[in-house]
Amino acid sequence: MDNFQLFNPVNVIFGKNTIGELPNLLKDKSNILFAFGGGSIKKNGVYQQIRSALANKNIIEFSGIEANPDYDTLIKAVELCKNESVDFILAVGGGSVIDGCKFIAHAAKFKGKNAWDILCGKEVKDALPLGCVLTLSATGSEMNTFSVISKRSTKEKRAFSSTLSFPKFSILDPTFSLSLPERQIINGIIDPYVHVTEQYLTYNVNAPLQTRQSEAILLTLIEEGPKALKNLENYEMRANLMWCATNALNGTIGKGVPQDWATHEIGHELTAQFGLDHAQTLAVILPAVLKHEFENKKKRLAHYGTKVFAIKGDSDSKIAKQAIEKTEKFFRSLGAKTRLSEYKITKKSLKAIPEQVMKVTGGKKLGEHGNIGAKEIGKILDLAFEK
Amino acid sequence: MDNFQLFNPVNVIFGKNTIGELPNLLKDKSNILFAFGGGSIKKNGVYQQIRSALANKNIIEFSGIEANPDYDTLIKAVELCKNESVDFILAVGGGSVIDGCKFIAHAAKFKGKNAWDILCGKEVKDALPLGCVLTLSATGSEMNTFSVISKRSTKEKRAFSSTLSFPKFSILDPTFSLSLPERQIINGIIDPYVHVTEQYLTYNVNAPLQTRQSEAILLTLIEEGPKALKNLENYEMRANLMWCATNALNGTIGKGVPQDWATHEIGHELTAQFGLDHAQTLAVILPAVLKHEFENKKKRLAHYGTKVFAIKGDSDSKIAKQAIEKTEKFFRSLGAKTRLSEYKITKKSLKAIPEQVMKVTGGKKLGEHGNIGAKEIGKILDLAFEK
Repeated sequence: MDNFQLFNPVNVIFGKNTIGELPNLLKDKSNILFAFGGGSIKKNGVYQQIRSALANKNIIEFSGIEANPDYDTLIKAVELCKNESVDFILAVGGGSVIDGCKFIAHAAKFKGKNAWDILCGKEVKDALPLGCVLTLSATGSEMNTFSVISKRSTKEKRAFSSTLSFPKFSILDPTFSLSLPERQIINGIIDPYVHVTEQYLTYNVNAPLQTRQSEAILLTLIEEGPKALKNLENYEMRANLMWCATNALNGTIGKGVPQDWATHEIGHELTAQFGLDHAQTLAVILPAVLKHEFENKKKRLAHYGTKVFAIKGDSDSKIAKQAIEKTEKFFRSLGAKTRLSEYKITKKSLKAIPEQVMKVTGGKKLGEHGNIGAKEIGKILDLAFEK
Repeated sequence: MDNFQLFNPVNVIFGKNTIGELPNLLKDKSNILFAFGGGSIKKNGVYQQIRSALANKNIIEFSGIEANPDYDTLIKAVELCKNESVDFILAVGGGSVIDGCKFIAHAAKFKGKNAWDILCGKEVKDALPLGCVLTLSATGSEMNTFSVISKRSTKEKRAFSSTLSFPKFSILDPTFSLSLPERQIINGIIDPYVHVTEQYLTYNVNAPLQTRQSEAILLTLIEEGPKALKNLENYEMRANLMWCATNALNGTIGKGVPQDWATHEIGHELTAQFGLDHAQTLAVILPAVLKHEFENKKKRLAHYGTKVFAIKGDSDSKIAKQAIEKTEKFFRSLGAKTRLSEYKITKKSLKAIPEQVMKVTGGKKLGEHGNIGAKEIGKILDLAFEK
């Protein structure tokens, strides 16, 4: 295995009624930005619980953080933080709210002129502290340093990572996810699934523990996902999905192993251009990436087919091919679309995507071998479009 | 699954030549207690590398921390910390040195009269910061809060846990473990194996991810352990064992699930009374605990047999029985003894053990059901003695 560093100081508090820990966790804070998305937390009671837990604090509310959080929305919260002397940001929601708050936390302390520079590689040396109350599990943002921000005005979507983004705490009460619409539960299965494959379906570097830790998550998602969709009120199943999502991107499984992320980088552009949900882009792009990179990933795909789908046989090629088919079939069984042609997207409208991806990466090719450039992305999009 | 908290801020730096990070990690420290065991780090070059990396620091050396670190040894280091204004403790060695340094770190700031009270439940509110350079992987102490200390003068062995015990960093270079004697490699397979079973062989609470994460470690130890013993110079195999050991007791697999620890608590007394290596006691006691608790653990043992040893069949009892046999067989295949009668220990000399264990726990019965008292420990010792 390769050398690595593992550092993840997030204080995760998981389970029923854990929101009761909030007053203790925030006892030293005075002016708290309470940031959330739409009105769903008012319907499921989370809003009221938080207001009551923090009754003796100065709470500055900021609502309206949308899915794929928008720069122009977030920048308003940045102003609020500065004007109201905010000393802590409480992100209440899913990955979009948390990602948005990581950006707000940095932008509030940013000394430069244009906070978008944070998304373009500008290092930030200070940030407001933040904590999370997770209501929708998918992205793993509650236990990592990553943040992905969109700019609708220019149709851009970019990511940044900073150790200052680690939430001080994350409260994960699966109860809060019980009221989610089905589409978000499906997204919450596919997103962590692909987080795992990005760190697992590459090439072997003799790291059998990380390999098995990855398979542990995939097998659990395959087992619990469909059950959770059939039992929308079941706490246990949703708890298992939530814990899978956190573990899929808290760093552990990717330590010391090669990583891919081509599916994500192409997917981000599809969200930026067409507004697809993040997980919807992954369900479409992953099978196409696996097909395009078949020879490079064949051995690993065969291992995956054997261990995750229990495919028998002695031909790596055949098992690998079936493994891709089974992956797509699993996504479809959840109700996800796996081809671009199923969306209202024309082939012509995809033409600009490859160059746009390359612009975001600064020309750096994608994939664990760094072999996927604009031409290859075009081919992957063709495969993803195929009916 | 049950509610839980996961917080583990240890900065793990894993791989070849990672000792080079030391100057950066200690840049704000002045007076460093460099604590180690015997002379092995002088033979394998680790000592020289550390002295050279910290050439511009005031280094206070403290050597002689023995296996199962002794209170009377450690208390000398505590005096040194106070007299030399030590502001950081660097533990260089295996679990014994790290456990010992966790105690030194607390005792150096302890306000009470008798530092042994720390081992008897007295809360400590301050401790010196410490970091580790791991040379022997087994206990997982490099990434947790636990410390087990012996007092040879009274034949006691006790544990304590404190969040202040988290190492600020742990440097894990598997190269340093290549010069270990075979016995310590065997211990380094069995110790993490039993750390996993203590958190896994209990009863099912519907936590399939944690279950699979546990199996990931067991399967990897079974796969890599024997290979590593046959290829004593192989870095990769030893790296896999080292990473298994850390993951076995860094908290992750035990989150939200019941835990046992009866094997450890009985084992500690065997070390205290007879001087057996910690892992040697575990190899002897685990099979006996599993036999004694057969009915309570049967379903879980059957699951273990199916997933870890691929035992086929439809009788839980039969699979569970075979799983215990396979566990013992695995330990023996490594060269470990699995019966007390194989050591120079008489049955008579075991008589005081049950009451001694109960004294340490303050009368609290052992096991995930809290059903193992002095009488049951006696029976477990009989089973462990059987020829």
